[in-house]
Amino acid sequence: EQDIQALVTEIHEQVSDDQIAILLESFPLKLRLTLWQALSDEAQQNIFIVMKHESRELLLSTLEDEQCLPLLTKLDAVHLLELSESLNDRFIDYAVSNMNAKQRSLYKKSCDYALDEVGHWQNFTEIQLPQRLKLSAVKKVCSKKLPSFTEVIYIVDDNGVLIGEIPVNAIFKAESDQEYRDSIDTDVEYLLSNEDIADASEKLIDLDRSALPIIDENRCLTGRLDLPTAYRYKEQTLEAQLNQSGGLVEEEDLFGNVWQSSKNRAVWLGINLVTAFLASWFIGLFEATIQQVVALAVLMPVVASMGGISGSQTITLIIRGLALGQINDSNKKSIIAKELKVGAINGVLWAIVIGAITFIWFDNPLLSLTIFISILGNIVIASLSGVWVPWILNKFNIDPALSGSVVLTTVTDIFGFIVFLGLGSLLLL
Amino acid sequence: EQDIQALVTEIHEQVSDDQIAILLESFPLKLRLTLWQALSDEAQQNIFIVMKHESRELLLSTLEDEQCLPLLTKLDAVHLLELSESLNDRFIDYAVSNMNAKQRSLYKKSCDYALDEVGHWQNFTEIQLPQRLKLSAVKKVCSKKLPSFTEVIYIVDDNGVLIGEIPVNAIFKAESDQEYRDSIDTDVEYLLSNEDIADASEKLIDLDRSALPIIDENRCLTGRLDLPTAYRYKEQTLEAQLNQSGGLVEEEDLFGNVWQSSKNRAVWLGINLVTAFLASWFIGLFEATIQQVVALAVLMPVVASMGGISGSQTITLIIRGLALGQINDSNKKSIIAKELKVGAINGVLWAIVIGAITFIWFDNPLLSLTIFISILGNIVIASLSGVWVPWILNKFNIDPALSGSVVLTTVTDIFGFIVFLGLGSLLLL
Repeated sequence: EQDIQALVTEIHEQVSDDQIAILLESFPLKLRLTLWQALSDEAQQNIFIVMKHESRELLLSTLEDEQCLPLLTKLDAVHLLELSESLNDRFIDYAVSNMNAKQRSLYKKSCDYALDEVGHWQNFTEIQLPQRLKLSAVKKVCSKKLPSFTEVIYIVDDNGVLIGEIPVNAIFKAESDQEYRDSIDTDVEYLLSNEDIADASEKLIDLDRSALPIIDENRCLTGRLDLPTAYRYKEQTLEAQLNQSGGLVEEEDLFGNVWQSSKNRAVWLGINLVTAFLASWFIGLFEATIQQVVALAVLMPVVASMGGISGSQTITLIIRGLALGQINDSNKKSIIAKELKVGAINGVLWAIVIGAITFIWFDNPLLSLTIFISILGNIVIASLSGVWVPWILNKFNIDPALSGSVVLTTVTDIFGFIVFLGLGSLLLL
Repeated sequence: EQDIQALVTEIHEQVSDDQIAILLESFPLKLRLTLWQALSDEAQQNIFIVMKHESRELLLSTLEDEQCLPLLTKLDAVHLLELSESLNDRFIDYAVSNMNAKQRSLYKKSCDYALDEVGHWQNFTEIQLPQRLKLSAVKKVCSKKLPSFTEVIYIVDDNGVLIGEIPVNAIFKAESDQEYRDSIDTDVEYLLSNEDIADASEKLIDLDRSALPIIDENRCLTGRLDLPTAYRYKEQTLEAQLNQSGGLVEEEDLFGNVWQSSKNRAVWLGINLVTAFLASWFIGLFEATIQQVVALAVLMPVVASMGGISGSQTITLIIRGLALGQINDSNKKSIIAKELKVGAINGVLWAIVIGAITFIWFDNPLLSLTIFISILGNIVIASLSGVWVPWILNKFNIDPALSGSVVLTTVTDIFGFIVFLGLGSLLLL
């Protein structure tokens, strides 16, 4: 017990809080709890903030309530907002009641915004100074330790309206009130608090700035969006896409609750089951044919999987193009034309290869012709579907990054089976 | 012609270079070239730098050589490094010969490092000042416009060895040489130029700093790694994973060269073909069985796809765990135990559901039993394979993020078919 305590203290001195959070996840739950208890209260509070969403939920659900509460006592508005989706209301209320008045009002302010609005993601570490402050007072404030990502100070009027900004080094260079006022840049880039966070993040990243001020509808400065927040938002989007392509609804802790994990994964298995049985049903329509030409059953996976891969290649490009706003009604035709060409080239190439292998294997020219036509048709159709499936989902406001590939595979599977088995019935019976 | 010119100039005034780069990609090649020609020389040079790798290659291959060269005349070391993988040697030589001596030596310096070393990614916008400089001189240098992400100034000795750093505002606050020297923080976080860029990026992001100094083996300051570069590296890694999961070897331009695109996609289609025929070969072993019980052929896609999804759910978690170093010999057993439990729960659940549907559909209790056992077995085996496939690939230094899912699907397909058709042969013939 005491050994663990000493070891954990030692590790905590060497390793950053973020790294400890990652490290903790590599231990099964029981051992993880022992290690957690060995951390000092302060270490627990800091590591709790940087843990992964799922691991934090897991921890809270394992600890006694009285052990959870200390973790929440020192949260400021920004931290609580980050945590709020993984905390239940009782804990949030407790955390809010433990804040000082300023942090509480900041928290309430951010809560007014939806999750996709800039205001929800703002932090309040910016330094803002009233316009009428004298240079000497300004210098005094700015000579203290500045928060990270502070290259400029924001200047506001008596009503809190954003007037302009001034680089930190320009403040100190100024030798008179006049010089100081002249150095204030009044033509500043800013974000609106109800702007879309995705657009705002792109804008901040494009401008190569470390933060941008956020103003509300009255042009009052409410906070700022910093570069790490912008990138973290972007990363989240990419990671959600990756999880989805792996068939997970939500990210999981490596040692997450078994029932929770099972539930998370059951969703996609269930969706997949519906589409798989749909494909089976279409195959079932050709039972008589398969019975007479079993080779068709043997070759089915080849037809289905070549179509599936082609389709997902196209859809990956199209989803990115839609996300960046590069695809619209006017260039849709040209994109389809290009995908058709690419599909035709790969279709012919692989139809020949597969047709030849089939001929060598089964020594049946008509079977060879059947699979030649099916592969060519399925790859071409898959390439086209890779364009129109996400396009249509997008029109209906369904995110194609999350549901596109299921719809697409269903289409290519079913089309592939119908053409292959249908053509087989015609040519081979 | 003149109208286009006016329109393009208008757009260029309104929209950032990054956005124009994205916009250009939404036009088919011919129109894109017309728009490109309408941009001013300076705009072309700036937009060229921020374009996507693939679009840049496409542009260079379309333009005449004499039109390409002006794009390269004003590149500095950092920009040329970013571009170097998409430029052929002739263009690189031209760009290098057009640099001034300082940029050329910086470029050479970065080229000495491998692509995965911090040194390759450094930029040279940091401000470094010799230790013996007087406060007045320091203030003079720092009162000019500072490069982005400059919160601290680095101090070096006569040999260029990094001594410490000082926040910009602390420089100006200092009133005597002594006070200035006392404010220099000599205990600074730094990166080594031959450190791994992935680790270094994580470190910079964890520290919540906007840049870190980079030193070489002699402790000399060589440059700095800034936050946008660190995040861009991380993003690249995520995007490569996303492209791979979509079956693309490389990202493509929406209107990329048709032959080039076809080649890019043919790689995965070819790999997939090998695994698909492998599965077919195993199905072929059971031709006699299928001929007598066609329902087995009808239900094959259900068995294969349920296994495929289960496996990819597990592998997604494991790949992330391996990348973060959370998985090691000591906790491997616990992870396998947990995945076994999750696999068993979903296996039993979906085996019952699928068994019941099969019974209703085919009214054959033995067929129902066959698929029950196969689904249960395949989901459990797939969950286990999701752990050991990436684990083994990792041991052999093969990136599981790029090749794991192909190997995994092959395993689950073949296992699923063997159990389902083998068991079918035993129970149903």
